[in-house]
Amino acid sequence: MLVIGENINASNKSVGEAIANRDRQFLESLTREQDAAGADFIDVNAGVGQGAWENPEAAMEWLVELVQAATDKPLTIDSDVPSIIAAALSKYRGETVMINSVNAEPERLDAIGHLAVERSASLVALVMGEGGIPSTVEERVAAADRIMEHLTRLGVAEDRIYFDPLVLPISVDVGQGMVTLRTIEQIKSRYPAAKTVMGLSNISYGLPRRGMVNRAFLLMAAAAGLDGAILNPRDSKMMSLIKVADMLTGKDQSCKGFIRAHRKDILVD
Amino acid sequence: MLVIGENINASNKSVGEAIANRDRQFLESLTREQDAAGADFIDVNAGVGQGAWENPEAAMEWLVELVQAATDKPLTIDSDVPSIIAAALSKYRGETVMINSVNAEPERLDAIGHLAVERSASLVALVMGEGGIPSTVEERVAAADRIMEHLTRLGVAEDRIYFDPLVLPISVDVGQGMVTLRTIEQIKSRYPAAKTVMGLSNISYGLPRRGMVNRAFLLMAAAAGLDGAILNPRDSKMMSLIKVADMLTGKDQSCKGFIRAHRKDILVD
Repeated sequence: MLVIGENINASNKSVGEAIANRDRQFLESLTREQDAAGADFIDVNAGVGQGAWENPEAAMEWLVELVQAATDKPLTIDSDVPSIIAAALSKYRGETVMINSVNAEPERLDAIGHLAVERSASLVALVMGEGGIPSTVEERVAAADRIMEHLTRLGVAEDRIYFDPLVLPISVDVGQGMVTLRTIEQIKSRYPAAKTVMGLSNISYGLPRRGMVNRAFLLMAAAAGLDGAILNPRDSKMMSLIKVADMLTGKDQSCKGFIRAHRKDILVD
Repeated sequence: MLVIGENINASNKSVGEAIANRDRQFLESLTREQDAAGADFIDVNAGVGQGAWENPEAAMEWLVELVQAATDKPLTIDSDVPSIIAAALSKYRGETVMINSVNAEPERLDAIGHLAVERSASLVALVMGEGGIPSTVEERVAAADRIMEHLTRLGVAEDRIYFDPLVLPISVDVGQGMVTLRTIEQIKSRYPAAKTVMGLSNISYGLPRRGMVNRAFLLMAAAAGLDGAILNPRDSKMMSLIKVADMLTGKDQSCKGFIRAHRKDILVD
C-alpha cells in the first residue's frame, strides 16, 4: 500500500497558521516525522494564500522548497488550481512527483493533464464531475471512463493514473461503504494498469470512534484492491494495519515486512 | 455477521478436561459467557470421548443437554461423525440448529445431509474433498458445486448451506489470504441464497501478533461477503470490529447497532 502523508495541509489549523507565519521549523519537523513514520509520498497543500502571502502560488512555491529540503521522499502536489500546481512544479527538483488532483471536468483534465504530461507526473483523479460526488458505483465508473479516455489521449500513461473512488459518510447512507469498495473493484477490473488511492476519514464523518472505523475501512478497501491511501502516517495503529493488509493481500513476500516490523517492535494493535 | 461461539470445544485443553471430569460448572459458565458476549450460536464439540466416557456419543449427549440448559441460543453441533451428530440431535430440543460440518465426500454428504434434512438443520460445508484443503480458488469452488448439487438433491434448502471457504496459513503461502477472499466472492456470486462462514485463526498460524492478523482478516472477509464467523465471542476487540464490519457493509440500518454499542461503552479498539 502506497502511503501518502497528509499532514502538510493548510486546512489543518496548525499547519495553516505555520504557513501564514512562515514557521519553517514546525513544517520541516512535520515533514521529517512523516518521512520517518514510513510515508512514501509527502502531500503538500498550501491552501489559498493565508497571512502575508501575496498569492497562493507564492505560498505553494515556498512550501515546496521547504518540504523538499526536509525529505528525500517524493512530493504530492495537492491543489486543483492549475496555476498553483504549475508554480509548485516550477520549484520542485525531484524526478518522481504526483499531482493531487483532477476530476472528470474536461477543462481541468486539459489543464492539469498537460502539466502531468510535461513532468511525467502521476495524477490523482477523483471519479466525479461538476455535480459533486456521485452516489452510485455506475456514475463513478462512468466518470473514471471519461477521465481515462481524456488523459490517455493527452499522453498520460495508464499506470500513472491514480483513481480516487471517493467516500461518502456511512452515517448519511449506510450503503456508501460498499459503493466505494465496489468502485475500487470495478476500476481495477476495467483498468488493470491504473491505480486506486483514497483518503479514509470521510467514511466515519458524524460517527464516534472514528479512528477505529477508518482503520477497518482501510482493511476492507485493501481487500478490494486499493493501491494507496492518503493518511496520517504518524498514526501507528494505521501504519501497523497497513503492514498486515500488505501481508494478507499477498504483497509482502514471505511475510518479511510484517515480521521485520514485529521484531523492531513497531506494530501497535 | 453471524457469530458462532467456538469455546465449547474438547480440543481446547481446559474444555477437554472439563468434559472428561464432568465439570458442569466450568462448561455452563463458559456457555453463559459466550451468550452474554453476543454469540448467535454456541458451537458444541465433545471430542472423541475423553476420561470416563464409554463412547463419544455419550459425551456429546451429556454436553448438549448441559449447554442447552445454560443458554437460549441455538447450538451448532460440531462433529464430522454421523453417529455423534445423530446422538447430539437426539438430545437437542431447540428448533434452530446447525451442523458443523460436512465436506464434499459423497458418503459424508449422504449421511450428514440426511440428518440435516430430517431436522431442517443448517449445515456448514467445507469446500474440500478427501485430498485435504485445495490450494486454489477453482478447486474450492468446484467442491462447492459438488456439495450444492448433492445437498439440494437430498432436499437441503440452499439458504441452509453455510460454505466454509477454508483458510491456509499466510506464513506458508502469501497468496492464501486472497484465495480465501476470492472463494467467498465466487461462492456468493454463484449461490446468492447460500451463506459463507469460517474460522479465522488458521490465517495467522506461525506468525506473531495473531489476534491482530485474525481481526484484520475478518474485516477483509466481511468486505468479500462473509456471512458468519466461528470465533471466541469473549474477544471484545473482535466483537467490536464485527459491529464496525456490519456497519461498513451496510448491514446496520442507520448505524444503530454501532452507535448503541458505543453508548453502552462496549467498543474496544
